[in-house]
Amino acid sequence: MIIDKKECLEFFLNNEEFLVISHEHPDGDTLGCAFALCEILKQMGKRRAFVCADEITGDFSFMTEGFVNDELSSPVRVSVDVADKNLFGKLPEDIIGNIDLAIDHHMSHTMFADKVYLENRAAACEIIYDLAKSLPVEINRYMRNCLYTGISTDTGCFRYNNTSALSFSIAAKLMEAGIDSARINKLMFETKTKSFLKLEMLSRETLEYHFNEKCAVITVNQEMYKQSGSTEHECYPITALPRQIEGVLVGVVIKEKEDGSFGISVRTDGDIDASEICARLGGGGHKGAAGCRADCGYEEIKERILASVKKSLDGIDL
Amino acid sequence: MIIDKKECLEFFLNNEEFLVISHEHPDGDTLGCAFALCEILKQMGKRRAFVCADEITGDFSFMTEGFVNDELSSPVRVSVDVADKNLFGKLPEDIIGNIDLAIDHHMSHTMFADKVYLENRAAACEIIYDLAKSLPVEINRYMRNCLYTGISTDTGCFRYNNTSALSFSIAAKLMEAGIDSARINKLMFETKTKSFLKLEMLSRETLEYHFNEKCAVITVNQEMYKQSGSTEHECYPITALPRQIEGVLVGVVIKEKEDGSFGISVRTDGDIDASEICARLGGGGHKGAAGCRADCGYEEIKERILASVKKSLDGIDL
Repeated sequence: MIIDKKECLEFFLNNEEFLVISHEHPDGDTLGCAFALCEILKQMGKRRAFVCADEITGDFSFMTEGFVNDELSSPVRVSVDVADKNLFGKLPEDIIGNIDLAIDHHMSHTMFADKVYLENRAAACEIIYDLAKSLPVEINRYMRNCLYTGISTDTGCFRYNNTSALSFSIAAKLMEAGIDSARINKLMFETKTKSFLKLEMLSRETLEYHFNEKCAVITVNQEMYKQSGSTEHECYPITALPRQIEGVLVGVVIKEKEDGSFGISVRTDGDIDASEICARLGGGGHKGAAGCRADCGYEEIKERILASVKKSLDGIDL
Repeated sequence: MIIDKKECLEFFLNNEEFLVISHEHPDGDTLGCAFALCEILKQMGKRRAFVCADEITGDFSFMTEGFVNDELSSPVRVSVDVADKNLFGKLPEDIIGNIDLAIDHHMSHTMFADKVYLENRAAACEIIYDLAKSLPVEINRYMRNCLYTGISTDTGCFRYNNTSALSFSIAAKLMEAGIDSARINKLMFETKTKSFLKLEMLSRETLEYHFNEKCAVITVNQEMYKQSGSTEHECYPITALPRQIEGVLVGVVIKEKEDGSFGISVRTDGDIDASEICARLGGGGHKGAAGCRADCGYEEIKERILASVKKSLDGIDL
């Protein structure tokens, strides 16, 4: 059931014990939401605990340092920034089977919870900020740092098209009150691991152009992970690279998985629809960013994705 | 003479013909200021023209498209975002010898103009925005795009430490009224030329570590420009790279100039002072970013800069 802000506030006021749940492979937004919400609940004199299927990486240690879960007997369950039940990852069914409230900003949200508070915002942390302003709490520096982390990471530091006037105006208020933006920006946007640098170099050597250089393809294979000491988890920034090249309308990254299958990321520009390109191979996504998977060999998968790219480029003036 | 905002507004209200001047190698901030100011003056029924020592690159064509200088007989001269007279580049002395008003945000401003309106802001475009709000003009979409370009480029898209609550709050107001942020962000931050990609690959192959990997050095030489088809002008983003590597406190980029001399860029983190490192070689700059030049051979210049880095790392727990 979709609820409004007032009902969402009542949910927090009327319950006493909360289990706050982030999605698997937790990012800045789901963690920023979770730890800001836990701080809100603590200030309100409630008992709260946090749970997530995967470990939290060191970048976010400023959120978790000194954080201790309260012991809970029969908490209500609140998910933050989780669009679909399968994104909880490997959490047991007795936790994720009965979510009482889902707070989310994905318009693709699949309504797995009893109550759903959904707002079309750049980051779920923007929703938590709005809630905090209406609750009897002080938005302290810790909370501000959590919320800024979520907003800045989900907007690519205010660069992606989802960035709104509201994102900027919340950032202005957080910064005016005081945040550690220099430290957070450095951690989130200005740090490259040595293994990632090597992976990036190796994968960039595979760069090839197609269709009058309107399409660029980069391949990342398991051998590169071995050579660089990097992992699939670090591969994400590479997916943006081919489309960033001057004149390229479709950027494709073909990533070999551990089991020998392939994941393909497509990023497009202008009027080219990435989700259409991926749908022809059974995948999906958004207009500018989509993906698909395939179990066939590398050459075949490349041929198939290029054939699909070609169809979407037809009619474009090459 | 330093003037305040009221005097600056009077300057625009009381004069009729304006020559607006940007600094050499014009960037988003100096151009955003200049073209927003020209639009302000046009709306006020004044006559205005723009001049700059260097050509404007294609990224900024949305500012210059359809822009035509008015013919002027004896204009007042206004420089925007120009910190020092030598930054006008190769403009004739009869233009830059008598600047009537300098609008600037650099605290290192050298007071070359008759009147100076100086505000310590992240971008000079923030100052122009404030002036526009107090003048009898409509801040239209063209002006908003110019101002957003200046603020976003001078803050590294709201990532650098100069980004303030005011930067965010002006961005919020510009975006609320409507700007082409997707197009501008793509042009300014998401586009890499093929020649730059090649230069980046070649230069990254020179990456070396010193002092227990606390210092990373990258070299860019003339041969790399030839091989990649790139130019010194495109080299700038590379200067940030060594310091972005995990664990690196001092990032050094040694750039060979056309005349065989070397320019050295130093970027530091934490308590290490880049200007101190460069001062030992006759250079200078800020705490986090500084530079110096040298005419000796490559091996000697590397030895000298590393000796200076070592001095500044002494006492740091390696």
